[in-house]
Amino acid sequence: MATLGMIEYQDASPDVRAVYDDIMATRKTDWINNFWKALANDPRTLKRTWEDVKQIMAPGTLDALTKELIYLAVSVSNQCGYCIASHTAAARNKGMSDDIFRELMAVVGMANESNRLASGYQVEIDERFKL
Amino acid sequence: MATLGMIEYQDASPDVRAVYDDIMATRKTDWINNFWKALANDPRTLKRTWEDVKQIMAPGTLDALTKELIYLAVSVSNQCGYCIASHTAAARNKGMSDDIFRELMAVVGMANESNRLASGYQVEIDERFKL
Amino acid sequence: MATLGMIEYQDASPDVRAVYDDIMATRKTDWINNFWKALANDPRTLKRTWEDVKQIMAPGTLDALTKELIYLAVSVSNQCGYCIASHTAAARNKGMSDDIFRELMAVVGMANESNRLASGYQVEIDERFKL
Amino acid sequence: MATLGMIEYQDASPDVRAVYDDIMATRKTDWINNFWKALANDPRTLKRTWEDVKQIMAPGTLDALTKELIYLAVSVSNQCGYCIASHTAAARNKGMSDDIFRELMAVVGMANESNRLASGYQVEIDERFKL
Amino acid sequence: MATLGMIEYQDASPDVRAVYDDIMATRKTDWINNFWKALANDPRTLKRTWEDVKQIMAPGTLDALTKELIYLAVSVSNQCGYCIASHTAAARNKGMSDDIFRELMAVVGMANESNRLASGYQVEIDERFKL
Amino acid sequence: MATLGMIEYQDASPDVRAVYDDIMATRKTDWINNFWKALANDPRTLKRTWEDVKQIMAPGTLDALTKELIYLAVSVSNQCGYCIASHTAAARNKGMSDDIFRELMAVVGMANESNRLASGYQVEIDERFKL
Repeated sequence: MATLGMIEYQDASPDVRAVYDDIMATRKTDWINNFWKALANDPRTLKRTWEDVKQIMAPGTLDALTKELIYLAVSVSNQCGYCIASHTAAARNKGMSDDIFRELMAVVGMANESNRLASGYQVEIDERFKL
Repeated sequence: MATLGMIEYQDASPDVRAVYDDIMATRKTDWINNFWKALANDPRTLKRTWEDVKQIMAPGTLDALTKELIYLAVSVSNQCGYCIASHTAAARNKGMSDDIFRELMAVVGMANESNRLASGYQVEIDERFKL
Repeated sequence: MATLGMIEYQDASPDVRAVYDDIMATRKTDWINNFWKALANDPRTLKRTWEDVKQIMAPGTLDALTKELIYLAVSVSNQCGYCIASHTAAARNKGMSDDIFRELMAVVGMANESNRLASGYQVEIDERFKL
Repeated sequence: MATLGMIEYQDASPDVRAVYDDIMATRKTDWINNFWKALANDPRTLKRTWEDVKQIMAPGTLDALTKELIYLAVSVSNQCGYCIASHTAAARNKGMSDDIFRELMAVVGMANESNRLASGYQVEIDERFKL
Repeated sequence: MATLGMIEYQDASPDVRAVYDDIMATRKTDWINNFWKALANDPRTLKRTWEDVKQIMAPGTLDALTKELIYLAVSVSNQCGYCIASHTAAARNKGMSDDIFRELMAVVGMANESNRLASGYQVEIDERFKL
Repeated sequence: MATLGMIEYQDASPDVRAVYDDIMATRKTDWINNFWKALANDPRTLKRTWEDVKQIMAPGTLDALTKELIYLAVSVSNQCGYCIASHTAAARNKGMSDDIFRELMAVVGMANESNRLASGYQVEIDERFKL
């Protein structure tokens, strides 16, 4: 098979199950989404990625919702279909209202437009921005 | 000249000056950064872009700093040098602390990594995410 | 019709068939994948692209599998669904094991993360790297 | 040296010189820009790339200026600094006026914005567009 | 629901209907494609985006077809599936022949290739291009 | 200051120095490049990123040079200037010859071209590639 299949809980090795258990406990859910079931084909990448996500996305100076919005903004810019679907759902779970979604999309669209205007006009960085 | 030059205030037409004045009044500053001076070569794009930015970046359900962080996240993903420099400065002005910057970068990096893991493993969108 | 259809072998002109024959002979297969059937709508682009691919992907100092891994890495970074599917299959045919796939994805993910950390932190190129 | 240097005409091998001569004859200029001098480190890629560019960018159903505008639009979207500089100059040589440049940038900016709005809102392709 | 649904004409508020009416009148069609029905969840973004598109894509120094080709070129570079489908159809409506499509794709492919050759070889911008 | 400065060894905290020491020991060098000095502003991201890089880039089924070539291919596709410079140097240290560099660039360019041809022609994934 060209692509590796999804690893279900019942078929998972103990170390993969340990990560699955931690994902469900941390997220207070009873299921695992396909991203992790795919990564489970590489237990080391699964564990590393989950631990990184767990640490990075935990509330810090920025709250969990704001971090999720940033994650979604990047996924939309990168045109990653799976990521947009999964992180839109995640942001909803963390409290993204319709209004927040609307404002987020407007900012993401605007940033992508102005990024190209800046490049196309070959704008040089202002001295003040280098301080 | 291949590229259009920057339009300084003293050389600007009345309609460009009107936009410059509004930028400075809105931002409570006494200078105009190069992005706008370049766009001023196209007064219609200058006016449209500024009005869009002014509306979109104004505090709404999301506060001004959160919007700026999202803008910066997109600019970093797109590798736009000018935009990263200018929006890092803008975020600083709106209250981005060193801690917020650190957390922002960690999320942006993580999102860019996991976007490619999702694509590379050809992960299919979970049914639950389609609801 | 908005998009051009696929050109099947039996419907192809002699010059398109000549390219199809060369693709099958070179790859030692008896079928043509959709990418070439789509390009066949532009025989000149079909011929040019195939000749470029044939030359560039042939074993040189780098072996055929390594070249295919690089091709797949780029396709994953660019989030090109068709390309990821076709070049994952191609890499499998050239000997990509599950272990190689896992390592490849880990490197691609890591590179995409660190690319943005470098940009976001506005890291300047070290003098030593300019030598 | 980490990066390969530029190959000047006087230091070039006969086959590289032949490409340089053809570039200058085709473009009716007496100099070679750095892109080609860098590619000259790989005479086969130099020759292939130049022949492809020569064929693709020649006036066809689309005139030379329109093709150059498309090239520039892609370079701006990709944030390629060298390419933006060189293809802005090339478009100028082929007749790009200030007005055309302004309109081009507006379209490129708009397309980059709406691309992300389409992705972020997870818009499904209309049946009519599949015909 | 994670994602916002499409807003049909009969369910739309008066201000959304006004935009829909203007889209159909401007385009001389009797239907609205999904992009606008999705944006209608944010009437302000709908109105702003439509007005921007209407102004930017109207014939100016560049004709409507050339602008649409540039839009499509950007969408292809960004790998935005919806945008490619909708703007291919739009370009067809504005007169894109099969030959134009073929030439457009060849230029877009070439530009994406040479953009990376320029970056990978770390080509420095020629002094002449800075003038 | 908008951007965080570089953290030199003599100014670094003990935990940052520990990472620096491990980087130099692992790489058998006596200096630290700017990427790490910038990340040192966030000791947690510094440590996590270094440990990830150290694990992922270590020889496995793929050797260290092949991994570095993949890293460079991604950086070139993403147009990340710093990353291209630093990973070209790293690849040189790991044995990248001029010939390997030439072949790598040819593959990266080709992949970026064909990725857009596949998208632009809206090529559907072959059933065989889904197996």
